[in-house]
Amino acid sequence: MGVIDLTDVVVVGGGIAGLSVAWRAAAAGHRVVVADPSPGSGATHAAAGMLAPVSEVTYTEEPLLRLGLASLELWPSFAAELSEESGLDVDHRADGTLDVAFGADDLAALDELADFMRKLSLPVERLTGRECRRAEPMLAPSVRGGLLAAGDAWVDPRRVTAALLAALPRRGAAVVRERVTGLSVERGAARGVRLADGRVLAAERVVLAAGAWSGSLEGFPPEVAPPVRPVKGQIMRLRGAPGFLGRCVRGVVHGSSAYLVPRGDGEIVLGATQEEMGFDTRVTAGGLWELLRDARELVPGVTELEVSGLSAGLRPGTPDNLPVLGATAMEGLLLASGHHRGGVLLAPLTAGLLAAELDGTLAGDPSAYGRAAAVCSPLRFHQAPAAHGSGNGTTAHHR
Amino acid sequence: MGVIDLTDVVVVGGGIAGLSVAWRAAAAGHRVVVADPSPGSGATHAAAGMLAPVSEVTYTEEPLLRLGLASLELWPSFAAELSEESGLDVDHRADGTLDVAFGADDLAALDELADFMRKLSLPVERLTGRECRRAEPMLAPSVRGGLLAAGDAWVDPRRVTAALLAALPRRGAAVVRERVTGLSVERGAARGVRLADGRVLAAERVVLAAGAWSGSLEGFPPEVAPPVRPVKGQIMRLRGAPGFLGRCVRGVVHGSSAYLVPRGDGEIVLGATQEEMGFDTRVTAGGLWELLRDARELVPGVTELEVSGLSAGLRPGTPDNLPVLGATAMEGLLLASGHHRGGVLLAPLTAGLLAAELDGTLAGDPSAYGRAAAVCSPLRFHQAPAAHGSGNGTTAHHR
Repeated sequence: MGVIDLTDVVVVGGGIAGLSVAWRAAAAGHRVVVADPSPGSGATHAAAGMLAPVSEVTYTEEPLLRLGLASLELWPSFAAELSEESGLDVDHRADGTLDVAFGADDLAALDELADFMRKLSLPVERLTGRECRRAEPMLAPSVRGGLLAAGDAWVDPRRVTAALLAALPRRGAAVVRERVTGLSVERGAARGVRLADGRVLAAERVVLAAGAWSGSLEGFPPEVAPPVRPVKGQIMRLRGAPGFLGRCVRGVVHGSSAYLVPRGDGEIVLGATQEEMGFDTRVTAGGLWELLRDARELVPGVTELEVSGLSAGLRPGTPDNLPVLGATAMEGLLLASGHHRGGVLLAPLTAGLLAAELDGTLAGDPSAYGRAAAVCSPLRFHQAPAAHGSGNGTTAHHR
Repeated sequence: MGVIDLTDVVVVGGGIAGLSVAWRAAAAGHRVVVADPSPGSGATHAAAGMLAPVSEVTYTEEPLLRLGLASLELWPSFAAELSEESGLDVDHRADGTLDVAFGADDLAALDELADFMRKLSLPVERLTGRECRRAEPMLAPSVRGGLLAAGDAWVDPRRVTAALLAALPRRGAAVVRERVTGLSVERGAARGVRLADGRVLAAERVVLAAGAWSGSLEGFPPEVAPPVRPVKGQIMRLRGAPGFLGRCVRGVVHGSSAYLVPRGDGEIVLGATQEEMGFDTRVTAGGLWELLRDARELVPGVTELEVSGLSAGLRPGTPDNLPVLGATAMEGLLLASGHHRGGVLLAPLTAGLLAAELDGTLAGDPSAYGRAAAVCSPLRFHQAPAAHGSGNGTTAHHR
């Protein structure tokens, strides 16, 4: 029941967000402990790992796009340093995404997207159907055109968490495989967490990075909990031969966006459903059917491939689709959550932002971290609703 | 390298056929050893377990239908004795099959089948679409009619093999978990088998019950090997609530016959593909897609169910779709193979027939075993082709 090991920072949640924050914070000299009963087993385990900020988000969501582009830029050095420190490869590839279209409407949408990407000085190329198939011979004959986003990249999220778990002890950070059951609060400030085994991990600061569970953790004050909701994604892994696809392929099929991500070992990841089902992580017949139906239309040859894995994960969605990163209204409590579909893409940005916040260097930081901090502040959901003049807002202070 | 334990009968293959033969032979007083590196893990493990002779086979194949009906009649006592001896339930249910139709052609086919079943004095009932949905509320609204075959039954094949494995030692029979690498032949007669670990299992008789592998086992003389080929089946298991379906439901969707088999614990088995792919037991994207597509059309609510298992197995197909049961042209070598889609249904008949053959009581037997022995004889594939007057036939004698 005793207090153990006063440390600097406790990170609640060992997904890609929490582990990345822990790694960067530990590298900056903080003593860090990550608490998670099963690190890397949540949304990160299910994720395909696309680093495709433009085609991933609708380009009307410019703040999110800016965050994604900033983090995409951080990925090569993040991956390189992580591989260097852990001795593990994370299968970071930057061979681009080919977005394909079947009908006239889809083609027009691709043209609009191409214009937009060019305005952002992103390297894109409009391809004919024939050029698409020359680039990716497994594509369906009915593909009429495509957009090659050469700057898009991807990683294997499972390898990233494995590398982070290997790198953490080298930076003196520990992982406690135990469930967190509550926040330890002293005089209104977060000063550690309680564990399911009765222990208390005392710390100067607590970073809540529990993904879809961040908003509803037992024993955390609701006033500072982020407004995240679980957005279920089901995903299927197939065993292909290396070279089956040369790059990520995606397209809108039956109104939903489907994609195929090739790994270095030949694995093909089919993703992903988006379902608002609460905390339901069952792989369902309907989810698989949707994935298979869409993937077959994009790349008919997938039918010949062996099914090597099925998973479902819960993305932490927020009301404005932006993550919640940084200091909260409660002293000592920071957030690294709400990444929705962008947890893997935004991991380097999240880690750098939180590390700067923990260092006390974020305020006025002119870099990407500083710019991101403003739009991602947890306080945006907990300020008094002055604009509406209503007294119905949640309080910004605990107790 | 030594010879071990001279026994009466060695059964090669621990699927439902081999284990049933071993159980019945042991009960008749023979000393029996079953050799299989992994009993119950082949086609039996994948099988849905329908005991539906009429709707399973095309009714033009009357010899096979007769075998199926004879074995269906044996199942209740087979299941009861097996449960009694093993102390394990095999989930034998006899609640019938509902065959449904969507279009006018399918309805006409159901009417023909109904007439045929009535001629055989089998209990059938033609239902309207509304009556179908009243019987099975989860059926698709587009179902226009159905045929309720009240006599159809099913078991859980995995429970059957578990029960057989539990019952065998009580009858003094042993299971050697080792791969068979060849037949031990003495003066032209089968007298045991060689195992992968170098041992020889000496026996008076050898029963080859290796399913799809029966025709191509290393070290077995090709002249007496049965002409079986692997017919791949992929199958999916879903977690339903008990009562989701009350009976087996099947129908022809997209030209192929699809079915859903409910287990007592709520599991729903979706089956099954039929693919000629050689010895390929991969679960493929295309196989799952086909199963899901067809099941959704029959019972749309399956989309909400959790996927609890995927498997693929190889059925032993023969040129005339009939099993090969009984004595071969080689002294001491018997076959219990070639069951194609009927291995579970035909297990009691197979076991009884082989036990009678081992007892020397099969010749002239007026029971179902005797009648089956004539049509299922392995010799039918290895006799000189007198009818064609050609000298190209395989010899009926070994060496």
